[in-house]
Amino acid sequence: MTDVPGKPIMIRAIVVTVSDKGYRGEREDTSGLLLCQLLAKMGAQVTDAHLVPDERDQIAALLASLADGDGVDLVLTTGGTGPSPRDVTPEATRAVIEREMPGLAELLRWDGYRRTPFAVLSRGVAGIRGHTLIVNLPGSPKAVSEGMEVLSPLLPAIITLIRDEVPVDGLCTPQ
Amino acid sequence: MTDVPGKPIMIRAIVVTVSDKGYRGEREDTSGLLLCQLLAKMGAQVTDAHLVPDERDQIAALLASLADGDGVDLVLTTGGTGPSPRDVTPEATRAVIEREMPGLAELLRWDGYRRTPFAVLSRGVAGIRGHTLIVNLPGSPKAVSEGMEVLSPLLPAIITLIRDEVPVDGLCTPQ
Amino acid sequence: MTDVPGKPIMIRAIVVTVSDKGYRGEREDTSGLLLCQLLAKMGAQVTDAHLVPDERDQIAALLASLADGDGVDLVLTTGGTGPSPRDVTPEATRAVIEREMPGLAELLRWDGYRRTPFAVLSRGVAGIRGHTLIVNLPGSPKAVSEGMEVLSPLLPAIITLIRDEVPVDGLCTPQ
Repeated sequence: MTDVPGKPIMIRAIVVTVSDKGYRGEREDTSGLLLCQLLAKMGAQVTDAHLVPDERDQIAALLASLADGDGVDLVLTTGGTGPSPRDVTPEATRAVIEREMPGLAELLRWDGYRRTPFAVLSRGVAGIRGHTLIVNLPGSPKAVSEGMEVLSPLLPAIITLIRDEVPVDGLCTPQ
Repeated sequence: MTDVPGKPIMIRAIVVTVSDKGYRGEREDTSGLLLCQLLAKMGAQVTDAHLVPDERDQIAALLASLADGDGVDLVLTTGGTGPSPRDVTPEATRAVIEREMPGLAELLRWDGYRRTPFAVLSRGVAGIRGHTLIVNLPGSPKAVSEGMEVLSPLLPAIITLIRDEVPVDGLCTPQ
Repeated sequence: MTDVPGKPIMIRAIVVTVSDKGYRGEREDTSGLLLCQLLAKMGAQVTDAHLVPDERDQIAALLASLADGDGVDLVLTTGGTGPSPRDVTPEATRAVIEREMPGLAELLRWDGYRRTPFAVLSRGVAGIRGHTLIVNLPGSPKAVSEGMEVLSPLLPAIITLIRDEVPVDGLCTPQ
Protein backbone atom coordinates (compact mmCIF):
# COMPACT_ATOMS: atom_id res chain seq x y z
CA MET A 1 0.00 0.00 0.00
CA THR A 2 3.02 2.24 -0.34
CA ASP A 3 2.11 3.61 -3.74
CA VAL A 4 -1.64 4.02 -3.82
CA PRO A 5 -2.44 5.29 -7.29
CA GLY A 6 -4.88 8.07 -8.02
CA LYS A 7 -4.66 7.84 -11.82
CA PRO A 8 -7.76 6.96 -13.83
CA ILE A 9 -8.20 3.35 -14.91
CA MET A 10 -10.89 1.42 -16.78
CA ILE A 11 -13.01 -0.61 -14.37
CA ARG A 12 -15.10 -3.50 -15.70
CA ALA A 13 -18.03 -4.03 -13.36
CA ILE A 14 -21.01 -6.35 -12.96
CA VAL A 15 -24.14 -5.52 -10.97
CA VAL A 16 -26.06 -8.21 -9.08
CA THR A 17 -29.46 -7.46 -7.59
CA VAL A 18 -30.53 -9.88 -4.86
CA SER A 19 -34.30 -9.76 -4.35
CA ASP A 20 -37.06 -12.37 -4.16
CA LYS A 21 -39.67 -9.81 -5.23
CA GLY A 22 -37.53 -8.50 -8.06
CA TYR A 23 -36.84 -12.03 -9.28
CA ARG A 24 -40.56 -12.86 -9.28
CA GLY A 25 -41.29 -9.66 -11.17
CA GLU A 26 -43.24 -8.18 -8.24
CA ARG A 27 -40.92 -5.21 -7.78
CA GLU A 28 -39.00 -3.08 -10.25
CA ASP A 29 -35.22 -3.33 -9.86
CA THR A 30 -34.70 0.37 -9.14
CA SER A 31 -31.52 -0.16 -7.11
CA GLY A 32 -29.82 -2.35 -9.71
CA LEU A 33 -30.54 0.20 -12.40
CA LEU A 34 -29.32 3.04 -10.19
CA LEU A 35 -26.11 1.14 -9.45
CA CYS A 36 -25.46 0.70 -13.19
CA GLN A 37 -25.99 4.42 -13.72
CA LEU A 38 -23.70 5.43 -10.85
CA LEU A 39 -20.97 3.09 -12.12
CA ALA A 40 -21.31 4.52 -15.64
CA LYS A 41 -21.17 8.03 -14.21
CA MET A 42 -17.83 7.32 -12.53
CA GLY A 43 -16.52 6.00 -15.85
CA ALA A 44 -16.76 2.27 -15.18
CA GLN A 45 -17.89 -0.14 -17.88
CA VAL A 46 -20.86 -2.19 -16.71
CA THR A 47 -20.49 -5.39 -18.70
CA ASP A 48 -23.35 -7.39 -17.18
CA ALA A 49 -26.26 -7.24 -14.72
CA HIS A 50 -28.02 -10.07 -12.90
CA LEU A 51 -31.14 -10.53 -10.78
CA VAL A 52 -31.24 -13.45 -8.32
CA PRO A 53 -33.61 -14.52 -5.53
CA ASP A 54 -32.46 -14.54 -1.87
CA GLU A 55 -31.06 -18.07 -2.08
CA ARG A 56 -27.66 -18.48 -0.47
CA ASP A 57 -26.27 -21.21 -2.74
CA GLN A 58 -27.58 -19.54 -5.89
CA ILE A 59 -26.03 -16.18 -4.94
CA ALA A 60 -22.72 -17.80 -4.01
CA ALA A 61 -22.54 -19.79 -7.25
CA LEU A 62 -23.30 -16.68 -9.31
CA LEU A 63 -20.73 -14.50 -7.50
CA ALA A 64 -18.04 -17.16 -7.87
CA SER A 65 -18.68 -17.66 -11.59
CA LEU A 66 -18.72 -13.90 -12.23
CA ALA A 67 -15.49 -13.30 -10.30
CA ASP A 68 -13.81 -16.19 -12.10
CA GLY A 69 -14.77 -14.69 -15.49
CA ASP A 70 -12.23 -12.94 -17.68
CA GLY A 71 -11.28 -9.39 -16.76
CA VAL A 72 -13.98 -8.70 -14.18
CA ASP A 73 -12.67 -6.09 -11.72
CA LEU A 74 -15.72 -5.48 -9.61
CA VAL A 75 -18.97 -7.18 -8.64
CA LEU A 76 -21.37 -4.96 -6.71
CA THR A 77 -24.43 -6.53 -5.12
CA THR A 78 -27.53 -4.72 -3.88
CA GLY A 79 -30.05 -6.28 -1.51
CA GLY A 80 -30.25 -9.09 1.01
CA THR A 81 -27.92 -7.54 3.61
CA GLY A 82 -30.46 -6.89 6.40
CA PRO A 83 -31.59 -8.96 9.40
CA SER A 84 -34.71 -10.48 7.73
CA PRO A 85 -34.74 -14.30 7.61
CA ARG A 86 -34.33 -14.34 3.81
CA ASP A 87 -31.36 -11.88 3.86
CA VAL A 88 -28.33 -14.07 3.15
CA THR A 89 -26.20 -12.08 0.70
CA PRO A 90 -23.36 -11.60 3.26
CA GLU A 91 -23.22 -15.35 4.00
CA ALA A 92 -23.13 -16.14 0.26
CA THR A 93 -20.40 -13.56 -0.29
CA ARG A 94 -18.30 -14.73 2.63
CA ALA A 95 -18.44 -18.26 1.22
CA VAL A 96 -16.72 -17.23 -2.03
CA ILE A 97 -14.25 -14.47 -1.11
CA GLU A 98 -10.65 -15.46 -0.46
CA ARG A 99 -9.40 -12.31 1.27
CA GLU A 100 -11.78 -10.08 3.22
CA MET A 101 -11.65 -6.28 2.96
CA PRO A 102 -13.45 -5.41 6.21
CA GLY A 103 -12.68 -1.70 5.92
CA LEU A 104 -15.08 -1.19 3.00
CA ALA A 105 -18.01 -2.80 4.82
CA GLU A 106 -17.17 -0.87 7.99
CA LEU A 107 -16.93 2.39 6.03
CA LEU A 108 -20.35 1.87 4.44
CA ARG A 109 -21.85 1.36 7.89
CA TRP A 110 -20.12 4.10 9.84
CA ASP A 111 -20.46 6.74 7.15
CA GLY A 112 -24.07 5.65 6.63
CA TYR A 113 -24.80 5.81 10.36
CA ARG A 114 -24.12 9.53 10.42
CA ARG A 115 -26.85 10.05 7.80
CA THR A 116 -29.31 7.41 8.99
CA PRO A 117 -28.73 5.22 12.08
CA PHE A 118 -30.38 2.19 10.42
CA ALA A 119 -27.35 1.91 8.12
CA VAL A 120 -25.66 -0.16 10.84
CA LEU A 121 -28.28 -2.87 10.29
CA SER A 122 -26.56 -3.81 7.03
CA ARG A 123 -24.59 -7.02 7.48
CA GLY A 124 -22.72 -6.39 4.20
CA VAL A 125 -19.34 -7.94 3.47
CA ALA A 126 -16.52 -6.94 1.10
CA GLY A 127 -13.66 -9.04 -0.16
CA ILE A 128 -11.48 -10.25 -3.00
CA ARG A 129 -11.76 -13.43 -5.04
CA GLY A 130 -8.91 -13.88 -7.48
CA HIS A 131 -8.61 -10.50 -9.20
CA THR A 132 -12.16 -9.38 -8.48
CA LEU A 133 -13.45 -7.13 -5.70
CA ILE A 134 -16.94 -8.02 -4.41
CA VAL A 135 -18.87 -5.52 -2.28
CA ASN A 136 -22.37 -5.88 -0.80
CA LEU A 137 -24.59 -2.80 -0.76
CA PRO A 138 -28.01 -2.68 0.91
CA GLY A 139 -31.18 -2.91 -1.18
CA SER A 140 -32.61 0.58 -0.92
CA PRO A 141 -31.83 3.17 -3.64
CA LYS A 142 -30.84 5.65 -0.92
CA ALA A 143 -28.28 3.23 0.55
CA VAL A 144 -26.94 2.45 -2.94
CA SER A 145 -26.56 6.14 -3.73
CA GLU A 146 -24.91 7.03 -0.42
CA GLY A 147 -22.73 3.92 -0.50
CA MET A 148 -21.39 4.72 -3.96
CA GLU A 149 -20.52 8.24 -2.81
CA VAL A 150 -17.98 6.86 -0.32
CA LEU A 151 -16.88 3.85 -2.39
CA SER A 152 -16.33 5.53 -5.77
CA PRO A 153 -13.24 7.56 -4.84
CA LEU A 154 -11.57 4.41 -3.46
CA LEU A 155 -12.35 1.91 -6.23
CA PRO A 156 -9.67 2.85 -8.82
CA ALA A 157 -6.92 2.55 -6.20
CA ILE A 158 -8.20 -0.77 -4.85
CA ILE A 159 -8.62 -2.31 -8.29
CA THR A 160 -5.20 -1.16 -9.46
CA LEU A 161 -3.68 -2.81 -6.40
CA ILE A 162 -5.68 -6.03 -6.89
CA ARG A 163 -4.47 -6.16 -10.51
CA ASP A 164 -0.93 -5.72 -9.25
CA GLU A 165 -0.40 -3.26 -12.10
CA VAL A 166 1.12 0.17 -12.39
CA PRO A 167 -1.69 2.62 -13.08
CA VAL A 168 -2.49 3.36 -16.75
CA ASP A 169 -4.61 6.07 -18.27
CA GLY A 170 -8.17 5.06 -19.01
CA LEU A 171 -11.75 6.14 -18.91
CA CYS A 172 -12.55 5.63 -15.27
CA THR A 173 -11.89 8.83 -13.39
CA PRO A 174 -12.27 8.87 -9.63
CA GLN A 175 -14.45 11.67 -8.36
CA MET B 1 -34.18 -3.18 4.61
CA THR B 2 -36.43 -1.10 2.37
CA ASP B 3 -39.15 -0.55 4.94
CA VAL B 4 -37.46 -0.15 8.30
CA PRO B 5 -40.28 0.24 10.80
CA GLY B 6 -40.30 2.77 13.60
CA LYS B 7 -43.56 1.61 15.20
CA PRO B 8 -43.57 0.29 18.74
CA ILE B 9 -43.49 -3.48 19.23
CA MET B 10 -43.34 -5.78 22.24
CA ILE B 11 -39.83 -7.17 22.71
CA ARG B 12 -39.31 -10.29 24.82
CA ALA B 13 -35.77 -10.23 26.18
CA ILE B 14 -33.47 -12.37 28.31
CA VAL B 15 -30.43 -11.08 30.19
CA VAL B 16 -27.31 -13.20 30.64
CA THR B 17 -24.54 -12.09 32.99
CA VAL B 18 -21.20 -13.76 32.34
CA SER B 19 -18.95 -13.52 35.38
CA ASP B 20 -16.86 -15.98 37.40
CA LYS B 21 -17.03 -13.77 40.48
CA GLY B 22 -20.76 -13.20 40.11
CA TYR B 23 -21.35 -16.92 39.69
CA ARG B 24 -19.35 -17.71 42.83
CA GLY B 25 -21.27 -15.06 44.74
CA GLU B 26 -18.16 -12.90 45.22
CA ARG B 27 -19.57 -9.93 43.31
CA GLU B 28 -23.06 -8.47 43.06
CA ASP B 29 -24.53 -8.63 39.58
CA THR B 30 -24.97 -4.87 39.20
CA SER B 31 -24.70 -4.91 35.40
CA GLY B 32 -27.27 -7.67 34.90
CA LEU B 33 -29.74 -5.84 37.12
CA LEU B 34 -29.08 -2.55 35.33
CA LEU B 35 -29.62 -4.22 31.97
CA CYS B 36 -32.99 -5.57 33.13
CA GLN B 37 -33.98 -2.08 34.29
CA LEU B 38 -32.90 -0.42 31.03
CA LEU B 39 -34.81 -3.01 29.00
CA ALA B 40 -37.92 -2.48 31.12
CA LYS B 41 -37.53 1.28 30.73
CA MET B 42 -37.61 0.97 26.94
CA GLY B 43 -40.76 -1.11 27.24
CA ALA B 44 -39.28 -4.57 26.68
CA GLN B 45 -40.49 -7.55 28.69
CA VAL B 46 -37.59 -9.26 30.47
CA THR B 47 -38.77 -12.86 30.74
CA ASP B 48 -35.66 -14.41 32.26
CA ALA B 49 -32.19 -13.65 33.63
CA HIS B 50 -29.17 -15.93 33.97
CA LEU B 51 -25.76 -15.85 35.60
CA VAL B 52 -22.99 -18.08 34.19
CA PRO B 53 -19.26 -18.42 34.79
CA ASP B 54 -16.72 -17.54 32.05
CA GLU B 55 -16.82 -21.02 30.51
CA ARG B 56 -17.05 -21.04 26.73
CA ASP B 57 -19.06 -24.25 26.29
CA GLN B 58 -21.44 -23.39 29.12
CA ILE B 59 -22.12 -19.91 27.71
CA ALA B 60 -22.62 -21.28 24.19
CA ALA B 61 -25.02 -23.99 25.36
CA LEU B 62 -27.05 -21.47 27.35
CA LEU B 63 -27.25 -18.93 24.51
CA ALA B 64 -28.32 -21.61 22.04
CA SER B 65 -31.03 -23.00 24.31
CA LEU B 66 -32.36 -19.52 25.09
CA ALA B 67 -32.45 -18.49 21.42
CA ASP B 68 -34.17 -21.73 20.49
CA GLY B 69 -36.87 -21.09 23.11
CA ASP B 70 -40.34 -19.95 22.16
CA GLY B 71 -40.81 -16.29 21.32
CA VAL B 72 -37.45 -14.97 22.51
CA ASP B 73 -36.58 -11.84 20.50
CA LEU B 74 -33.44 -10.72 22.22
CA VAL B 75 -30.65 -12.12 24.37
CA LEU B 76 -28.32 -9.48 25.81
CA THR B 77 -25.14 -10.61 27.54
CA THR B 78 -22.97 -8.54 29.87
CA GLY B 79 -19.38 -9.46 30.74
CA GLY B 80 -16.55 -11.57 29.37
CA THR B 81 -15.83 -9.43 26.30
CA GLY B 82 -12.38 -8.11 27.24
CA PRO B 83 -8.83 -9.39 26.57
CA SER B 84 -8.39 -11.25 29.90
CA PRO B 85 -7.67 -14.98 29.55
CA ARG B 86 -11.06 -15.96 30.98
CA ASP B 87 -13.01 -13.57 28.67
CA VAL B 88 -14.62 -15.88 26.11
CA THR B 89 -18.17 -14.57 25.65
CA PRO B 90 -17.51 -13.49 22.02
CA GLU B 91 -16.16 -16.92 21.09
CA ALA B 92 -19.17 -18.63 22.70
CA THR B 93 -21.53 -16.26 20.89
CA ARG B 94 -19.84 -16.68 17.53
CA ALA B 95 -20.21 -20.45 17.91
CA VAL B 96 -24.01 -20.25 18.08
CA ILE B 97 -25.06 -17.35 15.82
CA GLU B 98 -26.06 -18.18 12.26
CA ARG B 99 -25.89 -14.71 10.71
CA GLU B 100 -23.55 -12.05 12.11
CA MET B 101 -24.66 -8.43 12.58
CA PRO B 102 -21.21 -6.78 12.69
CA GLY B 103 -22.64 -3.26 12.59
CA LEU B 104 -24.01 -3.46 16.13
CA ALA B 105 -20.70 -4.58 17.63
CA GLU B 106 -18.85 -1.93 15.62
CA LEU B 107 -21.31 0.75 16.73
CA LEU B 108 -20.87 -0.13 20.41
CA ARG B 109 -17.11 0.22 20.00
CA TRP B 110 -16.89 3.34 17.90
CA ASP B 111 -19.58 5.25 19.78
CA GLY B 112 -18.01 4.07 23.04
CA TYR B 113 -14.53 5.13 21.92
CA ARG B 114 -15.62 8.77 21.74
CA ARG B 115 -16.58 8.64 25.41
CA THR B 116 -13.81 6.37 26.69
CA PRO B 117 -11.02 5.00 24.46
CA PHE B 118 -10.96 1.67 26.32
CA ALA B 119 -14.34 0.83 24.76
CA VAL B 120 -12.44 -0.53 21.74
CA LEU B 121 -11.03 -3.28 23.97
CA SER B 122 -14.41 -4.99 23.91
CA ARG B 123 -14.33 -8.00 21.61
CA GLY B 124 -18.15 -8.19 21.62
CA VAL B 125 -20.09 -9.90 18.84
CA ALA B 126 -23.69 -9.51 17.63
CA GLY B 127 -25.71 -11.86 15.49
CA ILE B 128 -28.91 -13.74 14.79
CA ARG B 129 -29.80 -17.34 15.65
CA GLY B 130 -33.19 -18.36 14.28
CA HIS B 131 -35.51 -15.50 15.23
CA THR B 132 -33.39 -14.24 18.12
CA LEU B 133 -30.89 -11.38 18.18
CA ILE B 134 -27.89 -11.91 20.49
CA VAL B 135 -25.68 -8.95 21.45
CA ASN B 136 -22.64 -8.94 23.74
CA LEU B 137 -22.18 -5.93 26.03
CA PRO B 138 -19.11 -5.38 28.23
CA GLY B 139 -19.27 -6.12 31.95
CA SER B 140 -19.10 -2.65 33.49
CA PRO B 141 -22.33 -0.82 34.40
CA LYS B 142 -21.06 2.25 32.53
CA ALA B 143 -20.56 0.25 29.32
CA VAL B 144 -23.99 -1.37 29.73
CA SER B 145 -25.63 2.01 30.21
CA GLU B 146 -23.85 3.68 27.29
CA GLY B 147 -24.32 0.64 25.07
CA MET B 148 -28.06 0.57 25.65
CA GLU B 149 -28.26 4.25 24.76
CA VAL B 150 -27.14 3.52 21.20
CA LEU B 151 -28.77 0.09 20.88
CA SER B 152 -32.27 0.89 22.22
CA PRO B 153 -33.43 3.07 19.32
CA LEU B 154 -32.41 0.36 16.83
CA LEU B 155 -33.82 -2.75 18.55
CA PRO B 156 -37.52 -2.49 17.56
CA ALA B 157 -36.63 -2.14 13.88
CA ILE B 158 -34.13 -5.02 13.94
CA ILE B 159 -36.49 -7.36 15.77
CA THR B 160 -39.42 -6.55 13.49
CA LEU B 161 -37.21 -7.39 10.51
CA ILE B 162 -35.96 -10.62 12.09
CA ARG B 163 -39.58 -11.65 12.78
CA ASP B 164 -40.35 -10.93 9.14
CA GLU B 165 -43.54 -9.25 10.32
CA VAL B 166 -45.24 -6.00 9.51
CA PRO B 167 -44.99 -3.76 12.56
CA VAL B 168 -47.83 -3.95 15.09
CA ASP B 169 -48.66 -1.65 17.97
CA GLY B 170 -47.30 -2.79 21.30
CA LEU B 171 -45.67 -1.69 24.48
CA CYS B 172 -42.09 -1.31 23.39
CA THR B 173 -41.52 2.24 22.31
CA PRO B 174 -38.16 3.18 20.85
CA GLN B 175 -36.59 6.22 22.49
CA MET C 1 -12.83 -4.84 31.83
CA THR C 2 -14.00 -3.37 35.09
CA ASP C 3 -10.58 -2.27 36.30
CA VAL C 4 -8.70 -1.06 33.27
CA PRO C 5 -5.29 -0.08 34.56
CA GLY C 6 -3.47 3.08 33.57
CA LYS C 7 -0.28 2.34 35.49
CA PRO C 8 3.00 1.89 33.61
CA ILE C 9 4.15 -1.64 32.88
CA MET C 10 7.10 -3.15 31.04
CA ILE C 11 6.06 -4.38 27.59
CA ARG C 12 8.24 -6.90 25.76
CA ALA C 13 7.64 -6.51 22.03
CA ILE C 14 8.76 -8.07 18.76
CA VAL C 15 8.58 -6.36 15.36
CA VAL C 16 7.87 -8.32 12.18
CA THR C 17 8.25 -6.69 8.77
CA VAL C 18 6.42 -8.48 5.97
CA SER C 19 7.83 -7.51 2.59
CA ASP C 20 9.03 -9.40 -0.48
CA LYS C 21 11.24 -6.51 -1.54
CA GLY C 22 12.64 -6.04 1.94
CA TYR C 23 13.38 -9.76 2.23
CA ARG C 24 15.21 -9.76 -1.11
CA GLY C 25 17.19 -6.71 -0.04
CA GLU C 26 15.62 -4.51 -2.73
CA ARG C 27 14.08 -2.10 -0.24
CA GLU C 28 15.27 -0.74 3.08
CA ASP C 29 13.08 -1.74 6.02
CA THR C 30 12.17 1.81 7.01
CA SER C 31 8.84 0.86 8.60
CA GLY C 32 10.27 -1.93 10.74
CA LEU C 33 12.96 0.39 12.04
CA LEU C 34 10.43 3.14 12.72
CA LEU C 35 8.22 0.70 14.60
CA CYS C 36 11.15 -0.30 16.83
CA GLN C 37 11.85 3.35 17.54
CA LEU C 38 8.23 4.17 18.35
CA LEU C 39 8.01 1.18 20.68
CA ALA C 40 11.21 2.21 22.44
CA LYS C 41 9.90 5.75 22.72
CA MET C 42 6.81 4.55 24.58
CA GLY C 43 9.06 2.60 26.94
CA ALA C 44 8.59 -0.89 25.51
CA GLN C 45 11.51 -3.30 25.27
CA VAL C 46 11.96 -4.51 21.69
CA THR C 47 13.51 -7.94 22.16
CA ASP C 48 13.60 -9.07 18.55
CA ALA C 49 12.89 -8.02 14.95
CA HIS C 50 12.17 -10.16 11.88
CA LEU C 51 11.86 -9.69 8.14
CA VAL C 52 9.78 -12.20 6.14
CA PRO C 53 8.52 -12.41 2.57
CA ASP C 54 4.79 -12.23 1.77
CA GLU C 55 4.28 -15.98 2.18
CA ARG C 56 1.21 -16.92 4.20
CA ASP C 57 2.49 -20.13 5.77
CA GLN C 58 5.88 -18.62 6.58
CA ILE C 59 4.28 -15.57 8.26
CA ALA C 60 1.84 -17.75 10.22
CA ALA C 61 4.59 -20.09 11.44
CA LEU C 62 6.75 -17.16 12.54
CA LEU C 63 3.91 -15.39 14.38
CA ALA C 64 2.91 -18.59 16.18
CA SER C 65 6.45 -19.37 17.28
CA LEU C 66 7.04 -15.80 18.48
CA ALA C 67 3.76 -15.69 20.43
CA ASP C 68 4.51 -19.06 21.99
CA GLY C 69 7.91 -17.80 23.17
CA ASP C 70 8.57 -16.92 26.78
CA GLY C 71 7.29 -13.56 28.03
CA VAL C 72 6.39 -12.00 24.70
CA ASP C 73 3.58 -9.45 25.26
CA LEU C 74 3.26 -7.95 21.83
CA VAL C 75 4.01 -8.80 18.21
CA LEU C 76 3.51 -5.91 15.81
CA THR C 77 3.64 -6.59 12.07
CA THR C 78 4.09 -4.02 9.31
CA GLY C 79 3.26 -4.71 5.66
CA GLY C 80 1.16 -7.09 3.61
CA THR C 81 -2.25 -5.78 4.71
CA GLY C 82 -3.43 -4.27 1.41
CA PRO C 83 -5.47 -5.68 -1.50
CA SER C 84 -2.49 -6.67 -3.70
CA PRO C 85 -2.34 -10.38 -4.61
CA ARG C 86 0.76 -10.95 -2.46
CA ASP C 87 -0.75 -9.21 0.62
CA VAL C 88 -1.63 -12.08 2.97
CA THR C 89 -0.54 -10.90 6.44
CA PRO C 90 -4.16 -10.73 7.72
CA GLU C 91 -4.88 -14.31 6.59
CA ALA C 92 -1.67 -15.55 8.25
CA THR C 93 -2.54 -13.69 11.44
CA ARG C 94 -6.11 -14.93 11.53
CA ALA C 95 -4.81 -18.49 11.22
CA VAL C 96 -2.83 -18.23 14.48
CA ILE C 97 -4.85 -15.98 16.81
CA GLU C 98 -7.18 -17.63 19.30
CA ARG C 99 -9.30 -14.64 20.30
CA GLU C 100 -9.84 -11.75 17.90
CA MET C 101 -9.68 -8.12 19.07
CA PRO C 102 -11.64 -6.51 16.21
CA GLY C 103 -11.78 -3.10 17.90
CA LEU C 104 -8.06 -2.44 17.39
CA ALA C 105 -8.19 -3.16 13.65
CA GLU C 106 -11.37 -1.09 13.31
CA LEU C 107 -9.79 1.78 15.25
CA LEU C 108 -6.72 1.84 13.00
CA ARG C 109 -8.97 2.06 9.94
CA TRP C 110 -11.52 4.57 11.15
CA ASP C 111 -9.02 6.89 12.80
CA GLY C 112 -6.80 6.54 9.74
CA TYR C 113 -9.69 7.29 7.38
CA ARG C 114 -10.07 10.76 8.83
CA ARG C 115 -6.46 11.53 7.92
CA THR C 116 -6.27 9.64 4.62
CA PRO C 117 -9.25 7.77 3.08
CA PHE C 118 -6.99 4.99 1.76
CA ALA C 119 -6.47 3.79 5.35
CA VAL C 120 -9.67 1.75 4.98
CA LEU C 121 -7.89 -0.38 2.36
CA SER C 122 -5.91 -2.04 5.13
CA ARG C 123 -7.24 -5.52 5.80
CA GLY C 124 -5.32 -5.70 9.09
CA VAL C 125 -6.34 -8.03 11.91
CA ALA C 126 -5.67 -7.94 15.68
CA GLY C 127 -5.98 -10.74 18.19
CA ILE C 128 -4.59 -12.71 21.08
CA ARG C 129 -2.65 -15.98 21.03
CA GLY C 130 -1.95 -17.31 24.52
CA HIS C 131 -0.59 -14.30 26.41
CA THR C 132 0.53 -12.37 23.33
CA LEU C 133 -1.26 -9.59 21.47
CA ILE C 134 -0.67 -9.55 17.70
CA VAL C 135 -1.58 -6.44 15.66
CA ASN C 136 -1.14 -5.88 11.91
CA LEU C 137 -0.08 -2.41 10.78
CA PRO C 138 0.14 -1.37 7.11
CA GLY C 139 3.51 -1.17 5.38
CA SER C 140 3.99 2.56 4.92
CA PRO C 141 5.96 4.58 7.50
CA LYS C 142 3.09 7.08 7.64
CA ALA C 143 0.57 4.37 8.51
CA VAL C 144 2.95 2.92 11.12
CA SER C 145 3.44 6.31 12.70
CA GLU C 146 -0.25 7.21 12.74
CA GLY C 147 -1.25 3.73 13.85
CA MET C 148 1.11 3.81 16.83
CA GLU C 149 -0.34 7.17 17.87
CA VAL C 150 -3.75 5.59 18.50
CA LEU C 151 -2.47 2.18 19.68
CA SER C 152 0.20 3.30 22.17
CA PRO C 153 -2.14 4.71 24.83
CA LEU C 154 -4.16 1.46 24.82
CA LEU C 155 -1.36 -1.12 24.86
CA PRO C 156 -0.43 -1.10 28.59
CA ALA C 157 -4.05 -1.67 29.61
CA ILE C 158 -4.60 -4.45 27.06
CA ILE C 159 -1.40 -6.26 27.96
CA THR C 160 -2.07 -6.02 31.70
CA LEU C 161 -5.48 -7.58 31.11
CA ILE C 162 -4.06 -10.33 28.88
CA ARG C 163 -1.49 -11.14 31.58
CA ASP C 164 -4.33 -11.33 34.10
CA GLU C 165 -2.09 -9.41 36.49
CA VAL C 166 -2.57 -6.46 38.76
CA PRO C 167 -0.59 -3.55 37.34
CA VAL C 168 2.99 -3.10 38.58
CA ASP C 169 5.32 -0.16 38.19
CA GLY C 170 7.70 -0.45 35.28
CA LEU C 171 9.35 1.38 32.48
CA CYS C 172 6.58 1.50 29.95
CA THR C 173 4.61 4.68 30.38
CA PRO C 174 1.52 5.22 28.28
CA GLN C 175 1.40 8.56 26.49
